[in-house]
Amino acid sequence: MAGTDHRIQTAPLANAPAIILVDPQMGENIGAAARAMLNAALVDLRLVRPRDGWPNKKAADMAVGALDRMPPVQVYNSVQDAVAGCHYVLATTARPRDMVKPVFTPKAAAAEIRHRAQAGQQTAILFGAERSGLTNDDVALANGVITIPLNPAFSSLNLGQAVLLMAYEWFQLQDGTPARELPVGGSSPIPHEKLEELFVRLEAELEANNFFRNPDQRPTMVRNLRNLLGRAEMTEQEARTFHGVISALTGKKTELEK
Amino acid sequence: MAGTDHRIQTAPLANAPAIILVDPQMGENIGAAARAMLNAALVDLRLVRPRDGWPNKKAADMAVGALDRMPPVQVYNSVQDAVAGCHYVLATTARPRDMVKPVFTPKAAAAEIRHRAQAGQQTAILFGAERSGLTNDDVALANGVITIPLNPAFSSLNLGQAVLLMAYEWFQLQDGTPARELPVGGSSPIPHEKLEELFVRLEAELEANNFFRNPDQRPTMVRNLRNLLGRAEMTEQEARTFHGVISALTGKKTELEK
Repeated sequence: MAGTDHRIQTAPLANAPAIILVDPQMGENIGAAARAMLNAALVDLRLVRPRDGWPNKKAADMAVGALDRMPPVQVYNSVQDAVAGCHYVLATTARPRDMVKPVFTPKAAAAEIRHRAQAGQQTAILFGAERSGLTNDDVALANGVITIPLNPAFSSLNLGQAVLLMAYEWFQLQDGTPARELPVGGSSPIPHEKLEELFVRLEAELEANNFFRNPDQRPTMVRNLRNLLGRAEMTEQEARTFHGVISALTGKKTELEK
Repeated sequence: MAGTDHRIQTAPLANAPAIILVDPQMGENIGAAARAMLNAALVDLRLVRPRDGWPNKKAADMAVGALDRMPPVQVYNSVQDAVAGCHYVLATTARPRDMVKPVFTPKAAAAEIRHRAQAGQQTAILFGAERSGLTNDDVALANGVITIPLNPAFSSLNLGQAVLLMAYEWFQLQDGTPARELPVGGSSPIPHEKLEELFVRLEAELEANNFFRNPDQRPTMVRNLRNLLGRAEMTEQEARTFHGVISALTGKKTELEK
């Protein structure tokens, strides 16, 4: 569905977080998690006691090739074993636990993880079983908790979606895509003197055609037109087109249309 | 999986964006989109030419109740009809189109939409068919384009996931959840003088037990200990517990443990 249009490429960050699924039940969800991970260039997937064993055909089907493009998934018998070697571990929870532990939004968690990764730390994010989530003992092993802010009247994310949101937030932090840009292809944005040229010509034509009947209102009308056309952020090609429009409407050609 | 723990409730924002699915093929994806929307308190779902008609049993199954909690889905024969009444429309695209039109990340798009909503404008986000996406004519109808930055080597989101990411970004903007917080339950964070009391007692006990053998290193060791324990951001309850630990280890009780 949605994809990518990278103008600025960034190398994958070292020490990207491991994703650890604890007691996952359905292979489909493991596959969806792997697919979500690779969308964000995450490749360290660890499973603790997957109900249906590993490998799992349904996981492979749902991963649409992601599992084949990641290092082999590691399987563990305990959360302790799965987090061995990690310096910093966050646990995802749907409900508050009575533990004095920092609670992060996904974005703040991604920033914390990135900060730790840049300091050379190995990090991991724990996700619990489909219905029951992580146990309190699992959460107690973590340095902090991630809770995804959702509509309090309807919060219903499946395991793959929760992994997607975390992976997405991680990737946004390192991606170099500008938040907003205006692609202009082979054409350059119009320099201001060309825009002025266009305005002056348009205003002269309007003048000649009695557009400004009331001289008092002329300055305001000119300003409004300039604001309107300026906001369009025309390219040179578009400015030429616009000159053509004026010519067509007035029946006059000018040098500016070439 | 992941859920909510709202301390600050915010009313749903007026003029929330409509989600418009153009030529959606699979009912499952429509249902997943509805579920993703309601997670973010979005309820205006519009369909243009759904392949299998409407209503759709598979959509209802996948929506896990979301469709029943939203106003009736509106069905249209054209994108033009579906966006009638909208002041500002963004189109999601996976690949760049040769159009001079602003390109937003999901976060920047959510901010733009929120800004428009606050100004009283009705907004909408277009999503294309599962495999083919929006046509160039559909994109040309929009005021701007949203492209989700993903791993260039593997960008594979389905329709429901793309809707989820946009809905999530919208919800994060209006949600009042702090990015990071430390829930301390009924207990208050320890005031500094209590922490000082704890430090002084600990240091005295360490002194008495010959912990500081080298007097030159004492200041550094004390500072290290204070940094370490300060970082823990103890609650009053935890400070009492810690006093208890000191007492247990030294065999002495104090007034401070009550």
